[in-house]
Amino acid sequence: MRPSQRAPDEIRPVRLSRGWTQHAAGSVLAEFGATRVLCTASIEERVPPFLRGAGQGWVTAEYGMLPGATHERTAREAARGKQGGRTLEIQRLIGRALRAATDLPALGERTVTLDCDVLQADGGTRTAAITGAWVALHDALAQLRDAGLLETWPLLGQVAAISVGVFAGTPVLDLDYAEDSTAETDMNVVMNADGGLIEVQGTAEGVAFSRAELDAMLDLAAVGITQLVAAQRAVLA
Amino acid sequence: MRPSQRAPDEIRPVRLSRGWTQHAAGSVLAEFGATRVLCTASIEERVPPFLRGAGQGWVTAEYGMLPGATHERTAREAARGKQGGRTLEIQRLIGRALRAATDLPALGERTVTLDCDVLQADGGTRTAAITGAWVALHDALAQLRDAGLLETWPLLGQVAAISVGVFAGTPVLDLDYAEDSTAETDMNVVMNADGGLIEVQGTAEGVAFSRAELDAMLDLAAVGITQLVAAQRAVLA
Amino acid sequence: MRPSQRAPDEIRPVRLSRGWTQHAAGSVLAEFGATRVLCTASIEERVPPFLRGAGQGWVTAEYGMLPGATHERTAREAARGKQGGRTLEIQRLIGRALRAATDLPALGERTVTLDCDVLQADGGTRTAAITGAWVALHDALAQLRDAGLLETWPLLGQVAAISVGVFAGTPVLDLDYAEDSTAETDMNVVMNADGGLIEVQGTAEGVAFSRAELDAMLDLAAVGITQLVAAQRAVLA
Amino acid sequence: MRPSQRAPDEIRPVRLSRGWTQHAAGSVLAEFGATRVLCTASIEERVPPFLRGAGQGWVTAEYGMLPGATHERTAREAARGKQGGRTLEIQRLIGRALRAATDLPALGERTVTLDCDVLQADGGTRTAAITGAWVALHDALAQLRDAGLLETWPLLGQVAAISVGVFAGTPVLDLDYAEDSTAETDMNVVMNADGGLIEVQGTAEGVAFSRAELDAMLDLAAVGITQLVAAQRAVLA
Amino acid sequence: MRPSQRAPDEIRPVRLSRGWTQHAAGSVLAEFGATRVLCTASIEERVPPFLRGAGQGWVTAEYGMLPGATHERTAREAARGKQGGRTLEIQRLIGRALRAATDLPALGERTVTLDCDVLQADGGTRTAAITGAWVALHDALAQLRDAGLLETWPLLGQVAAISVGVFAGTPVLDLDYAEDSTAETDMNVVMNADGGLIEVQGTAEGVAFSRAELDAMLDLAAVGITQLVAAQRAVLA
Amino acid sequence: MRPSQRAPDEIRPVRLSRGWTQHAAGSVLAEFGATRVLCTASIEERVPPFLRGAGQGWVTAEYGMLPGATHERTAREAARGKQGGRTLEIQRLIGRALRAATDLPALGERTVTLDCDVLQADGGTRTAAITGAWVALHDALAQLRDAGLLETWPLLGQVAAISVGVFAGTPVLDLDYAEDSTAETDMNVVMNADGGLIEVQGTAEGVAFSRAELDAMLDLAAVGITQLVAAQRAVLA
Repeated sequence: MRPSQRAPDEIRPVRLSRGWTQHAAGSVLAEFGATRVLCTASIEERVPPFLRGAGQGWVTAEYGMLPGATHERTAREAARGKQGGRTLEIQRLIGRALRAATDLPALGERTVTLDCDVLQADGGTRTAAITGAWVALHDALAQLRDAGLLETWPLLGQVAAISVGVFAGTPVLDLDYAEDSTAETDMNVVMNADGGLIEVQGTAEGVAFSRAELDAMLDLAAVGITQLVAAQRAVLA
Repeated sequence: MRPSQRAPDEIRPVRLSRGWTQHAAGSVLAEFGATRVLCTASIEERVPPFLRGAGQGWVTAEYGMLPGATHERTAREAARGKQGGRTLEIQRLIGRALRAATDLPALGERTVTLDCDVLQADGGTRTAAITGAWVALHDALAQLRDAGLLETWPLLGQVAAISVGVFAGTPVLDLDYAEDSTAETDMNVVMNADGGLIEVQGTAEGVAFSRAELDAMLDLAAVGITQLVAAQRAVLA
Repeated sequence: MRPSQRAPDEIRPVRLSRGWTQHAAGSVLAEFGATRVLCTASIEERVPPFLRGAGQGWVTAEYGMLPGATHERTAREAARGKQGGRTLEIQRLIGRALRAATDLPALGERTVTLDCDVLQADGGTRTAAITGAWVALHDALAQLRDAGLLETWPLLGQVAAISVGVFAGTPVLDLDYAEDSTAETDMNVVMNADGGLIEVQGTAEGVAFSRAELDAMLDLAAVGITQLVAAQRAVLA
Repeated sequence: MRPSQRAPDEIRPVRLSRGWTQHAAGSVLAEFGATRVLCTASIEERVPPFLRGAGQGWVTAEYGMLPGATHERTAREAARGKQGGRTLEIQRLIGRALRAATDLPALGERTVTLDCDVLQADGGTRTAAITGAWVALHDALAQLRDAGLLETWPLLGQVAAISVGVFAGTPVLDLDYAEDSTAETDMNVVMNADGGLIEVQGTAEGVAFSRAELDAMLDLAAVGITQLVAAQRAVLA
Repeated sequence: MRPSQRAPDEIRPVRLSRGWTQHAAGSVLAEFGATRVLCTASIEERVPPFLRGAGQGWVTAEYGMLPGATHERTAREAARGKQGGRTLEIQRLIGRALRAATDLPALGERTVTLDCDVLQADGGTRTAAITGAWVALHDALAQLRDAGLLETWPLLGQVAAISVGVFAGTPVLDLDYAEDSTAETDMNVVMNADGGLIEVQGTAEGVAFSRAELDAMLDLAAVGITQLVAAQRAVLA
Repeated sequence: MRPSQRAPDEIRPVRLSRGWTQHAAGSVLAEFGATRVLCTASIEERVPPFLRGAGQGWVTAEYGMLPGATHERTAREAARGKQGGRTLEIQRLIGRALRAATDLPALGERTVTLDCDVLQADGGTRTAAITGAWVALHDALAQLRDAGLLETWPLLGQVAAISVGVFAGTPVLDLDYAEDSTAETDMNVVMNADGGLIEVQGTAEGVAFSRAELDAMLDLAAVGITQLVAAQRAVLA
């Protein structure tokens, strides 16, 4: 039995609120249950040095955790003077996932930065970040398109992410903190709307996991992603 | 005429939402018009090294700006590897203001950290932060009191803050970004509920200001503070 | 009675020694009693990135405290790897104060950096820094003028600074360390030669201060500034 | 056809040289073809702060790339002042993999640090690092055991890692740099000697990958891991 | 002919001013011609971690250059966020030189920090720093002795330093900036009052130097050191 | 008697292995007994900012110590976030030594970076680094020459380095760790093939050393350098 009483293949209530703040080109509050991540998309008319003159754009991400977002206060990375390994790992993942959804040459020589800041953490912050950031990216690109700055629509399709794991011996979908902190295996899966895999990151927390468990988790992930891409479509409709 | 059509002595709509997130001991979303600052108060059962064994507690603050909170994206300080001068200046101000409201020996050997993170910026973020942080501090102290951990109630009284300035030759109250970015003089005033001054920080942005203008601004500040302390009381009632 | 036996409205002996070192374009040792701050002005023929092509110059300041300048040795910021919040706050104040005295377009596309390093600290280092830096700025600008590099004299007028406070219940002028460390209220005031206010920064250290006390402190500040601008004029004569 | 002329399921020649340097408790040069990683294991008689008094040990890893190890010189992270995201990601992976092989309470209150430094890079540095570090960890633990410092042998079993990917449409095993830099999908797999999965990290570099491709890659990984654990056993025999 | 018209074996006027500032336990302004270095000695009643419980004290040094001390403004290391290689090299040299003059067990478990800050640079700053710091160290130790805190006088003897070089083909003593910046060879020599060598650091700036040139430089150094130790003795008399 | 049973004027077995790794333009493993330093030379077609447009090239060096190279694990500088003073001092020395061997205008507007990473430390790492780096520099320059990119051969001659010291009262050549850690005096000498001195750095570790001891050490150094330049020539033959 899951602490939240959910069925093994049941995700938490998902809410994607567009236009949540007013300055950024795209701004989405992504909620997976009690997890709340503010995803904003900002456009800059330049590319990083390694892409100068390459005739393409760039999509990148930064991730942060507000100090008060967790049960125990998390030290502020700006005050500590550097981003930790977990932060860098997550923001690299978000960036790769969103680049997989983007036709970078069609974007033109500009950069979209996706800032994903966790306002409240209850497990699955990186998957909420990716799922919400895709909507923010969409809205920022739509702003460019509406301004007549794009010749081709650069969004290749939808991308969403969900966590799966083995909790108390059972494969479960969309772990909250109570499950995540004690799960035997924890896996994050990024997929597109066609069921194609973008990223799979699975980690045994104690004992190794089997191919059969991996298969069960991937099946669950597909179930969850189907609902998330539907939620993305619904909020854009 | 002010860009917002407000009267010179008119503050923006103020909203203080308690319990806005669930993990921190105190959590308040402070809104002054379009400015939105999330203020959380966290308690740690230890004091900084310079207070060890001194038989008193400590109240401190940290301030941050989400990258997407501003018209132009603000670079993330955690990624740049340090907090800027403006950030340090503001968080030192918030800390001093809240310590002025606290009986530190009565707090006991523990630290309350007030994290003030700007979700959306439209001028006056530091004053919204102080005004909201006071409520978050109250709620954190109440949690300690309700847990039987305090012998004496450590809150000495209310503290709130408001900006005043000279805009287009006229002293005005509670500047928004449109005013703040072009004002001749900008002043932040922290006061208690009895009209006592805690902090006055006034800066001439172009030409110097006169004692008469200073007086007019301080009169306006008192008008604003009266409404803010009433708003604090209302939300605690 | 003040520890130094001074009258409440009596400043310490002020000495501004021009040409104190020989390499910098302006070099002034500013002494307020036992407080000694070396202020040098250096000219660079470029402006910061945010002003490139803007057709104006820039005036900025950096502040430092020699480790041996204080009763207890102060840790060297270069060794700690960053400037502290107090340092950044002070150097931002000095920069704003001196920019208020400068016609930046008349300066041309160059930067004057005012380095204010405290050789010996006894209270009021930031006010001595501003008062001395103004003379160093004057001398650097005079060097540019004498070299035929300026079409218009860019100095708009004099700027000086003094501290005031409430010590043992009495408003006093130009606090030394013995007063500063125990004062109830501490305020720094930057003014021009016409009595215009450039910056007012007042902080209640324990109990709040009243409008009456604020007024008394500002009156004292005006008395002090009058003497400081006279001292600046005298040393330039 | 693979650039190296290898069959799709053929790994590069693997060499694990024990005792490659003399000071560290374990020291292994791990070579996967032209990739050479020096893995040393050092023992310290203390644990990180978060484990003090917890009655268990810790295994951690650090990863580095010598500047001359790559085709283009890689900037030295010590000179740049921080470890990059890729480095942190890899060393966190190595640490997790080796902890999965260790009975931390049996280790006692001490830390084994596995330093994996790439002397020459040709793809697969993190998998060579994990495979070699396991042998270095074994040797360091053996030194502790031979010194009578262990009551229980803390090594739970073997752990090894291999990369798989989809190159030119074909799933292949143990990618070298020529393949890695152009592969459509890149996956690193950490397994134990029983075929249990410790970590799976797969990334689509351009187009998404299918479940069928994932299965084919995992099958290949199992083939490779079998040979690596045999190589580990052989060198320990 | 030397730019300064000095004879090859002629040092610049040396002035060592004791008690130059009032807070530090020792405070000396060391002037070698136009080079001016403020040397302060501060005492802390603790030792660095690596000496805890070792029953001895420690002497260490830090070196800094005020930004306005040089012809072209030198960037402030505190603002850049780290001390440069030249700074670290010099302060390590000063520390070693002064430790060579101190009986560390006799000092007791305390640390003397020698801060050497260059107020004006004209060549030879590190040699002026060592020569002046020795006097500051003496005065700090005398303060300890006068307070009855020392059983044995910890100063083993005098230490001083001078630069020598080959300028325009001729070995010369005590190079100023005009010589130092174009000399073929530059050498710094630290000696004690008995003519014993503490440190020799010679660098060919263009062509190699011969043993004969080395010998000539060391002879000159001995001439200079004799005068410096006499100056130290004179100022202590 | 030396711990290694060597005669006072006997160096350790020296081995310089060219082409030790394959990507860098020059790559040499330099072994002085158990000390092993990997020296790679990398070429970049640009110069540092201070040389832009100066019509010359640059040679620079970076030094590192692998954490497992020493008896006690050395903390990784990349993880600590900065290079220590010892590292900076050594890499500055290596850079100066190799620049003394190079005709920088003949190199053209390019930079050769010599990375010297210690794989195993047993005393004399900086001297092994310089001696090996010279061969790596030679090979990198030869690659440029063979590619027709040089008009003039930029190598001015050979440069090598050796340590000397006073151990147990006797001057000895090429100290290993057992000697180095207890020697009374430690000196590093860089010379060219003609016996010219490039750099001399001698430090008294306890008592001062005499001119006679200095002479004896320099004589020994010349003996050692003769063998090192012969070894360099042999490996290039």
